[in-house]
Amino acid sequence: MNDLIETLLSRSARNIKPSPIREILHVIRQPGMISFAGGMPDPDIFPVAQFYEASSIIAREGKDILQYGTTEGYPPLKDFLSTWNTPKMGRKIQPDEILITTGSSQVIDLLSWALLDEGDYVVCEEPTFLGATGTMHNHGAKFLTVPCDEDGMMVDLLPDIIEKAISEGKKIKFIYTIVNFHNPLGCDLSLDRRKKLLAIAKEYGIVILEDDPYGHLRFEGEDVPSIFSMDRDGLVIFACSFSKILAPGTRVAWCAGNRDLIRKMAIFKQGIDTCTSVVAQSIVYEYCRLGHLEAFLPKIIEHYRKKRDQMEAALNTHLPLDKISWLKPKGGFFYWMTTAPGIPADKLLQRALEKKVAFVLGNAFYPTGVGGTNNFRMCFTFASPEMTETGIVRLGEAIREMI
Amino acid sequence: MNDLIETLLSRSARNIKPSPIREILHVIRQPGMISFAGGMPDPDIFPVAQFYEASSIIAREGKDILQYGTTEGYPPLKDFLSTWNTPKMGRKIQPDEILITTGSSQVIDLLSWALLDEGDYVVCEEPTFLGATGTMHNHGAKFLTVPCDEDGMMVDLLPDIIEKAISEGKKIKFIYTIVNFHNPLGCDLSLDRRKKLLAIAKEYGIVILEDDPYGHLRFEGEDVPSIFSMDRDGLVIFACSFSKILAPGTRVAWCAGNRDLIRKMAIFKQGIDTCTSVVAQSIVYEYCRLGHLEAFLPKIIEHYRKKRDQMEAALNTHLPLDKISWLKPKGGFFYWMTTAPGIPADKLLQRALEKKVAFVLGNAFYPTGVGGTNNFRMCFTFASPEMTETGIVRLGEAIREMI
Repeated sequence: MNDLIETLLSRSARNIKPSPIREILHVIRQPGMISFAGGMPDPDIFPVAQFYEASSIIAREGKDILQYGTTEGYPPLKDFLSTWNTPKMGRKIQPDEILITTGSSQVIDLLSWALLDEGDYVVCEEPTFLGATGTMHNHGAKFLTVPCDEDGMMVDLLPDIIEKAISEGKKIKFIYTIVNFHNPLGCDLSLDRRKKLLAIAKEYGIVILEDDPYGHLRFEGEDVPSIFSMDRDGLVIFACSFSKILAPGTRVAWCAGNRDLIRKMAIFKQGIDTCTSVVAQSIVYEYCRLGHLEAFLPKIIEHYRKKRDQMEAALNTHLPLDKISWLKPKGGFFYWMTTAPGIPADKLLQRALEKKVAFVLGNAFYPTGVGGTNNFRMCFTFASPEMTETGIVRLGEAIREMI
Repeated sequence: MNDLIETLLSRSARNIKPSPIREILHVIRQPGMISFAGGMPDPDIFPVAQFYEASSIIAREGKDILQYGTTEGYPPLKDFLSTWNTPKMGRKIQPDEILITTGSSQVIDLLSWALLDEGDYVVCEEPTFLGATGTMHNHGAKFLTVPCDEDGMMVDLLPDIIEKAISEGKKIKFIYTIVNFHNPLGCDLSLDRRKKLLAIAKEYGIVILEDDPYGHLRFEGEDVPSIFSMDRDGLVIFACSFSKILAPGTRVAWCAGNRDLIRKMAIFKQGIDTCTSVVAQSIVYEYCRLGHLEAFLPKIIEHYRKKRDQMEAALNTHLPLDKISWLKPKGGFFYWMTTAPGIPADKLLQRALEKKVAFVLGNAFYPTGVGGTNNFRMCFTFASPEMTETGIVRLGEAIREMI
């Protein structure tokens, strides 16, 4: 490394957290590797023809689409979302309550810009989506973590956690929660807990970031109302994305919430990327306008339900059931696996990689760095049925070698 | 405003700088307003048909394009840029020296993430692009400003400025310079000054961010070698964009430089937006691959040269030449106007807005907030010939009313 650059880089105090998937990317990309690591959609289900059809909007509206867009988002897409989101939101949200973002990671970045000062605290589930806490960490956030069970965040523990933090002089700025088909846990936050969480947020004056990238991908059971839909105090920022319900390569996501907070986030977005690609936004809009989103959702749900069922069957067939357990997810992308004592996940990953199968260590999802040593996350949406079968066979072999 | 949100927003110490254009946007959008304010391309010259043709890559490569992309950028586009940039860069840069970004504002955001700690200093021209210093300001940057003349930054003043800052314990992290057709000044940094600036950066161990969004839009004269092309020490990050040479609605830009710095910037980008829209990147790539970029550049240069000439003629015809002066730009987007004493720019703007013509106050481009009171910036690329003529007539009237 260039000495001067090395000095400059080390001089910066920012203690960046690279993604653990990024760290093992060179391993995942080895020929023959079967990866359950990344949280990626199945490219075989992408609606390529319909999306290309939608790109014809370029020919019609090119002069607008190729110009700088407004930072807040492409107005026709905001209008579409304001109506389309009504069932989730519990009411028709207005366009000025919506901010279109470059992926929903950007929602986390922008909310952090808007609310966090160095050393401020964020409440989150433990484990939680490491991309989110990594970004907040870059903004100087510290974390108050709440354990989870199969109904999500154990909200009853939260008041004591908050009281203790306040008594220690800690400033809590927002609560980060993934309400549906949690990443990495796969579980849902129950209705009762959603209500309690909102009441707690109101009592202590804390914003809730309700992250819901997977909520539209429910394979069974009834939708649980969003926290946003129960909020009468403008405390909830709701984040969703086209990444999982259409395609992540668009990098088009959105959030909705209190106008003042949305406005402040937009001012930061102005300095960060001016606006989300209008080319991408307009094609996504046209795709929706043509009715393709509504037609595609049942297909993708059915497709992923089958993949979940196939993964579930493979797990039950090929793994030693006394040494590993899991909760069957009702939607989303992920299985969260728990190994028996004596089978630490990091040792298992070593063996698995030798057999050319990859997953993400549970520990990576613990923002405090402590926990998840007997857990790992597997994505069931990406790998083909054949790869899933083979991968789980290999995983079973790796576990049996450790017994 | 919601009281709770108001409290939360004001609790945050971040002192955001909204763009002054954003602040007067509601005025600029008034019916009948002729705006020279925004730095926007002429939508009439956008290559809509060719760009739509390029979108056919979606039909062919949809499965890749719709998936998450690598944070560093769409590989075919990086390969294209590595060759295409050779004349500017002085050598064929390698793909791992390139990072594709969501507009070149993101280069500034990412470099600030990589290098700046709260209170660090950035050297910049005064005046300079307010979007850049606004973003750096959000990252806690302070500024050491260097005055400019018609050859750009007065580099000979820099060693004393740096020595003084160092003696005061200030940490200087990078030098921000817009080398060609400066925003807002319209001038070029001379070759001699580029060499001196690089030598100074090397002597003091400071990175240079060479921002060059306008360099391809030269109407006359010879290209001046980039600072990057003279750098043997990996100190220069070169930033360029498709915004001005193709279309800003793509939000596709890039930077090139030292691999370690590029890698660190990419890790931050991972947390901010995962990757730049692959949909937008791939269409831009296909547009370039089909040869449209090469074919379009001479057209856009000719188009903007004519607009510059028309603006120049209108200024000379309709303005009182003893009360206002300017330097005819040899490329780019902007005129920097200097009014005579007794005609402060803010008072002139008030009168101009009453006559429905808008521009940006010079003071907005001074990161210290002091200066530019008798200056304003006008963009000559956006307004139609008729609007330019009418707008300058109105501006002349406004000035004459103040004499």
